[in-house]
Amino acid sequence: MVTSRWTAAPARSASLRRRGEVLERAILEAALDQLSTVGWNGLTMEGVAAGAQTGKAAVYRRWPSKEDLVADALQASLPRMESVPDRGSVREDLLDLCRQSRDAMFSRPGNALRAVIHECDPQQVERFHGLIIGAVVEPMTRAVREIVTRGIERGEVRADAANGYVYDAIPAMMMYRTKMCTSEWNDRDLEELIDHLMLPLLRPDAG
Amino acid sequence: MVTSRWTAAPARSASLRRRGEVLERAILEAALDQLSTVGWNGLTMEGVAAGAQTGKAAVYRRWPSKEDLVADALQASLPRMESVPDRGSVREDLLDLCRQSRDAMFSRPGNALRAVIHECDPQQVERFHGLIIGAVVEPMTRAVREIVTRGIERGEVRADAANGYVYDAIPAMMMYRTKMCTSEWNDRDLEELIDHLMLPLLRPDAG
Repeated sequence: MVTSRWTAAPARSASLRRRGEVLERAILEAALDQLSTVGWNGLTMEGVAAGAQTGKAAVYRRWPSKEDLVADALQASLPRMESVPDRGSVREDLLDLCRQSRDAMFSRPGNALRAVIHECDPQQVERFHGLIIGAVVEPMTRAVREIVTRGIERGEVRADAANGYVYDAIPAMMMYRTKMCTSEWNDRDLEELIDHLMLPLLRPDAG
Repeated sequence: MVTSRWTAAPARSASLRRRGEVLERAILEAALDQLSTVGWNGLTMEGVAAGAQTGKAAVYRRWPSKEDLVADALQASLPRMESVPDRGSVREDLLDLCRQSRDAMFSRPGNALRAVIHECDPQQVERFHGLIIGAVVEPMTRAVREIVTRGIERGEVRADAANGYVYDAIPAMMMYRTKMCTSEWNDRDLEELIDHLMLPLLRPDAG
């Protein structure tokens, strides 16, 4: 089960001095904390600095803007997919994948990210939206591709299912239903998605 | 082919005095015009009044806010789906439906609506998003349901395809791809959507 945790910081931070890393993690954690308590609107660089028990300058030196700080905090804490599920059947693989993505979307940072997109100014939406694409959607479509490929090799999936519409179907449906009916995707919902949409889509032709 | 045109005004306007209708249409048309030229940010009640060659009071009397005015202008001008396509085959029916929805989404008011959603304040997004749902998405899912039902009766579609995941698949994919890769859905894209996603999803089992 994927839970909210610190994952490896992005490449940019790797070049900074080691002794700064502890402070940076404290600042990013304070930013996440502010998002949970006062939200995007209430978050200030001063409030984050106070939460990390440091001065404003230490924050601004590394993150020139609120947008930069929040993007990094979310990027660093969004749960990452572990290896592509490989349980021996397409159904189990896809279900496992959906659960991981659902857990990421509804983790503390995932909820914070969706709230930020809801609250920020129009010109910032694209940047935060890009975090969802990079952290959740793209890994998911790559994983579906791998699961479908294995399924074709096993004869479990029809050969012409190897196309972008198939790979995009799950993220498209999850995003659509999350928006349209604020679906929270419990395990039963995920089973229905796989059984009613994906398995019929993937099953081989008669013969 | 569906083009941008005046459709019947919503019920609320029907109760107003007849002689006001000409003025109201002029105001709504001026609002649409402002959206195309200066966008949501540049649109003002004064500018709309001037474009309709009337006074500000005439506008405010009917629409208390910019949001109300723009919502009504878009609502009144979004192309409406004519009857559910019935061309004798599921493939042709779904393609026709997709073309109508694509034409609505990329009509002048459709483009204006998407631009407004991009530019307006976070607290207004939901209202404008609701216009897309009411004018495009819900008619589309109802139409898919009808087309699928006919297909099941004809033996062209498997009986257990009568479920919400199937009905939602097309709008989910169109919204997803419009957002992810700013796809503009030309006729070839629509054929691929139907041939690669919908027909495999709907085809009957062997037997």
